[in-house]
Amino acid sequence: MKVLVVGANGQIGKHLVTFMKDHDSLEAKAMIRNEEQAAFFENLGAETVVVDLEDDIPAIAKAAEGVDAVVFTAGSGAHTGKDKTIMVDLDGAVKTIEAAKSVGVKRFIMISSFDTRRQAIQEAPASFAPYVAAKFYADEWLRRTDLDYTIIHPGLLTNNEGTGMVEAAEEVGRNEIPREDVAKVIIASLENENTIRKEFQIVKGNTPIQEAIAAI
Amino acid sequence: MKVLVVGANGQIGKHLVTFMKDHDSLEAKAMIRNEEQAAFFENLGAETVVVDLEDDIPAIAKAAEGVDAVVFTAGSGAHTGKDKTIMVDLDGAVKTIEAAKSVGVKRFIMISSFDTRRQAIQEAPASFAPYVAAKFYADEWLRRTDLDYTIIHPGLLTNNEGTGMVEAAEEVGRNEIPREDVAKVIIASLENENTIRKEFQIVKGNTPIQEAIAAI
Repeated sequence: MKVLVVGANGQIGKHLVTFMKDHDSLEAKAMIRNEEQAAFFENLGAETVVVDLEDDIPAIAKAAEGVDAVVFTAGSGAHTGKDKTIMVDLDGAVKTIEAAKSVGVKRFIMISSFDTRRQAIQEAPASFAPYVAAKFYADEWLRRTDLDYTIIHPGLLTNNEGTGMVEAAEEVGRNEIPREDVAKVIIASLENENTIRKEFQIVKGNTPIQEAIAAI
Repeated sequence: MKVLVVGANGQIGKHLVTFMKDHDSLEAKAMIRNEEQAAFFENLGAETVVVDLEDDIPAIAKAAEGVDAVVFTAGSGAHTGKDKTIMVDLDGAVKTIEAAKSVGVKRFIMISSFDTRRQAIQEAPASFAPYVAAKFYADEWLRRTDLDYTIIHPGLLTNNEGTGMVEAAEEVGRNEIPREDVAKVIIASLENENTIRKEFQIVKGNTPIQEAIAAI
């Protein structure tokens, strides 16, 4: 299964492409914003394609041609302005969804925020609410497609070493999760068709990732 | 027909409530952000209700109870940050749509941007694109409801005196339009049921507003 990783140069993206390198049946195609980001992936022997999420749908569609799945793990980051929140976290995600549809790629994994329900927008601190809103609308756009989507809602991301153990369910208590484990959950989701048209929260926990995702 | 005017304290909103004051069959209920904005409307003898568009759906729904139509003419303005673009122009609009649905108000007039098609987001200058994107998603949300909507796409807004004459069609050449004439187009749309589930661009022109809107 060839997988377009959108946001490959992000922290979760790098873990994901690295893990796929050693995977029997998954092969990454790393979508990156500029050529300077290519070295990391070339060193891994992974294919790269340069597309900016602010480019148009046909540009993203071209990157998605011939792949079997798309993983959206891009984020504008905490230090960009709110204009990037709407242009990347919302519109970049929606353009990627439309690009996948346009070239017939059905499988789509969305890395969302921990809680993107309506109430979470209202309850978020003012500085964070625009991000939650952007993710709310991107998730909602995806739900209204007929794609084979999985929406993953990770807890507070850390750079701690992964444990390979998580708690995963429609609703779990708010907690941390290492980015490395999020990448492993993405892989487990790609391997498990039972995650299709489902969404779940994940935080650190006591269940092996394969087992936790198989039980979704 | 009682009409909740969301964004009543904006420049179009003030014209709209003023015109309704002298209208036989339309009565405005001005939704304003704070009590200090009430004097203008009290002087007109118009009812006011204080709700912030960053409040939750039930708060907006309470304002919409008992009205026959909602006009959304709020905008975060050019001088607010991009966080307000997503929280007011997009999420405020969507919450107003959901509020109208929740209390059974079917008629909904949206004041949009001149061009909110996908291509317009791509072609907009970087500083304006987030606003176009916000309006794109708000319009799209409205289209996917079963409300009796009308989406009005005005050209470049000016404070010139209204002429009562416009050009209105699905697609017209880019041009200016006085805010006063936009307010008159809103009134004509409320009067003309043929505008239900339609959208059109308006700029200054040579056709009397009533006639132009009746021909939509």
